[in-house]
Amino acid sequence: MRHLLSIEDIEREDIERILGSAAFFGDVADRPIKKVPSFRGRLVINLFYEASTRTRSSFELAGKRLSADVLNVVSSGSSVEKGESLRDTVATLSAYGPDAIVIRSPHAGAPQLVARWSPAGVVNAGDGKHQHPTQALLDLYVLRQRIGELAGRSIWIVGDVLHSRVARSSAQAFMKLGAEVTFAGPPTLVPPELAALGCEVRHTLDGLGDADVVYALRLQHERMREAFLPSLAEYAACYQINSRRLKARQLLMHPGPVNRGVELSGDVIDGPQSLITEQVRAGIVVRMAVLVEVLSGSHADTPQVERLTPEPQLA
Amino acid sequence: MRHLLSIEDIEREDIERILGSAAFFGDVADRPIKKVPSFRGRLVINLFYEASTRTRSSFELAGKRLSADVLNVVSSGSSVEKGESLRDTVATLSAYGPDAIVIRSPHAGAPQLVARWSPAGVVNAGDGKHQHPTQALLDLYVLRQRIGELAGRSIWIVGDVLHSRVARSSAQAFMKLGAEVTFAGPPTLVPPELAALGCEVRHTLDGLGDADVVYALRLQHERMREAFLPSLAEYAACYQINSRRLKARQLLMHPGPVNRGVELSGDVIDGPQSLITEQVRAGIVVRMAVLVEVLSGSHADTPQVERLTPEPQLA
Amino acid sequence: MRHLLSIEDIEREDIERILGSAAFFGDVADRPIKKVPSFRGRLVINLFYEASTRTRSSFELAGKRLSADVLNVVSSGSSVEKGESLRDTVATLSAYGPDAIVIRSPHAGAPQLVARWSPAGVVNAGDGKHQHPTQALLDLYVLRQRIGELAGRSIWIVGDVLHSRVARSSAQAFMKLGAEVTFAGPPTLVPPELAALGCEVRHTLDGLGDADVVYALRLQHERMREAFLPSLAEYAACYQINSRRLKARQLLMHPGPVNRGVELSGDVIDGPQSLITEQVRAGIVVRMAVLVEVLSGSHADTPQVERLTPEPQLA
Repeated sequence: MRHLLSIEDIEREDIERILGSAAFFGDVADRPIKKVPSFRGRLVINLFYEASTRTRSSFELAGKRLSADVLNVVSSGSSVEKGESLRDTVATLSAYGPDAIVIRSPHAGAPQLVARWSPAGVVNAGDGKHQHPTQALLDLYVLRQRIGELAGRSIWIVGDVLHSRVARSSAQAFMKLGAEVTFAGPPTLVPPELAALGCEVRHTLDGLGDADVVYALRLQHERMREAFLPSLAEYAACYQINSRRLKARQLLMHPGPVNRGVELSGDVIDGPQSLITEQVRAGIVVRMAVLVEVLSGSHADTPQVERLTPEPQLA
Repeated sequence: MRHLLSIEDIEREDIERILGSAAFFGDVADRPIKKVPSFRGRLVINLFYEASTRTRSSFELAGKRLSADVLNVVSSGSSVEKGESLRDTVATLSAYGPDAIVIRSPHAGAPQLVARWSPAGVVNAGDGKHQHPTQALLDLYVLRQRIGELAGRSIWIVGDVLHSRVARSSAQAFMKLGAEVTFAGPPTLVPPELAALGCEVRHTLDGLGDADVVYALRLQHERMREAFLPSLAEYAACYQINSRRLKARQLLMHPGPVNRGVELSGDVIDGPQSLITEQVRAGIVVRMAVLVEVLSGSHADTPQVERLTPEPQLA
Repeated sequence: MRHLLSIEDIEREDIERILGSAAFFGDVADRPIKKVPSFRGRLVINLFYEASTRTRSSFELAGKRLSADVLNVVSSGSSVEKGESLRDTVATLSAYGPDAIVIRSPHAGAPQLVARWSPAGVVNAGDGKHQHPTQALLDLYVLRQRIGELAGRSIWIVGDVLHSRVARSSAQAFMKLGAEVTFAGPPTLVPPELAALGCEVRHTLDGLGDADVVYALRLQHERMREAFLPSLAEYAACYQINSRRLKARQLLMHPGPVNRGVELSGDVIDGPQSLITEQVRAGIVVRMAVLVEVLSGSHADTPQVERLTPEPQLA
């Protein structure tokens, strides 16, 4: 795999290989020394045009645990703010000889452009409302670890589907592995056209009890200003996932960061059904696996199996 | 030692052990290669909710010199600004499996909460007006190197004691090792209640000549706006430490950054009695020693002595 | 060489040695593992008082590829913003024991002060309108790789010469190696006094066709507000380098970031005569070479040749 731009691009066998590789790194993460020397001297550039704690730091850690050098370029304090075009920024950064560029951008399609302009392997870390494929893969990883095969499982994605790259990517990933996906939320945020993705569309939580997994989305406060929503209180009354609505056998997911008391009540966030912390933990090992794919793809001559031998543990 | 949250929590023997370990790292710092491989592959997260050059960079260097990976999370450009609660941020970061979290917060008590919520070892890098224990330890380290035992020594802490976590922590540390501490400054900034800490309280510099050590505090300019002070000029006239007031046998300390010409005159800052630069230097080795305590505490099975063997020097 | 403060300070033999060392690192940059273990455990501090993607990140990568630890201190979020003086900041950072301090400052002469105040080796990464010596060296490196000896070559530097530290440093460097330099641009931005540097001064592009190399400068948009320029359109009409003005045998350089459509047209930026990307690439290897000079100068006893032996490649 040369790039990871979209869940739509990749085959089921790619997904299985990445999940397997992530499981290997999951074992490494349980050792006192969580690093492998696979990519010593290789360069990963994180090019972030949007603020992000989770995604940026989890790619940074993933790179470091593979022993790569990681260079963070964020829009604040950089040429990006002098109005340099994406194309020139990419040309500049590519001249550093990065093995991979991880890009987050507010513009849908930016990662595809980077992949066209740079010889580096490119990983989409979120582009506008379009895709967030590593989030989708980590969601798959967490569910596989917990419930095994997804075929025939029912997954409800609840909230602001319209503006959510997470909803789009993860729904596609769940369906690729055979799950049935339902989108639920107010008609302004879950318009009927979304059914074209192959999901069922609902505007109430009736029938939520049949889901195996409930995946709540973050509600952006600005949606109220934009008149998508009358009030947070009314949203919470109709769509909040709480202990009254969540059955004991159901699992709960959320991409974070959570608005406590809005899309989720505090008790379910911290409850035993919540996979939210497991999702964060999976973020590192799945991103290690994705970087291995992309970094290996860019130097196909180097056999990957050798690079995975852990360094002797000095400590 | 599992955490370092407050000077009040720790025993004299803990202090002695940390100072001894810091002295070992002081020797390492004199070598061309200043690193030890003790904590390769371990993760230290710096979670900083306040701007800080000295403390953040000195923890970052301390971590790197122990060969740990260091992840900086600062409030700007992070989920912290999306309004995520401290609790959820800690849950997220803890999912990365850090061995230690170093936290600076404007809120007194925040480190205690982090220690309750995270399995990581926690180091308080300054919480509101409450505590700054690594500053206290480095102050002890510098004085021990210079004058040996502190028992019976007189230390004057001069300036804005009321708002200073440094004054509070360092006074407690000095007294734990037997020194006598006097707080001096204007009544608005050194109220009589501070005597409850076991220190003498003065509102003039009369008697300053009997001190062995004069410890000046940084004067926050905003104190004037808040009506604690009539003017910087008047403050300097009454409380500035300068070559007229400082005797040749006295030592001078300050936590930095200094307001030149306000709490200290330029000549004493750069004079031979000043320990200010030694304090900065001590910051790294003392923080290495504190991280070793906390990181070792989190994996009690691994014998610490082995991890301290320096790597063969390749350069 | 103890410091690199200005192109004026250094001899031709220093330049030749640095270019030779950069060529060695150019070979290293073509290997899968781009690191050498030369300076493991050494500390390089990047002290940046101005925003910069290219220069900061290229020094950061240069340091990392020499296996040094790199500490970035930027004005945002640091004591610098609490109004600490440069002198006190340097005293603080020097107490960390850095082997080199790389400084960018809006004030001409700041690096000289740092070199006076700190025992570290100092590299000027741009000071006001004064000097940017590593840019000059990388420009030499790129031209040497492309056209060999510069003696007798004609180089035109076009644009806002008055405010450009790049113009000043690179012109001096080109002339040290025997090239003839012409400054061209509007009289407000290329005043006749600049001829004192030993260059010819022109106010039109007549005669540009005789140049071997055309070096366009970035046009700061604020120059219009400051009444140096009537409009960008008029500037572009008179001085833009485009495919109509650039001959096929001429080479094109620019320090970046480019204002597309202002000082350069899009077609020449991306055309075969453009050395712009090579300049960026050269930035890393030349800065590695400069750091080696400065770091070696600070520990003259350690023979440099030994330190250049590459580490056995584990991956």
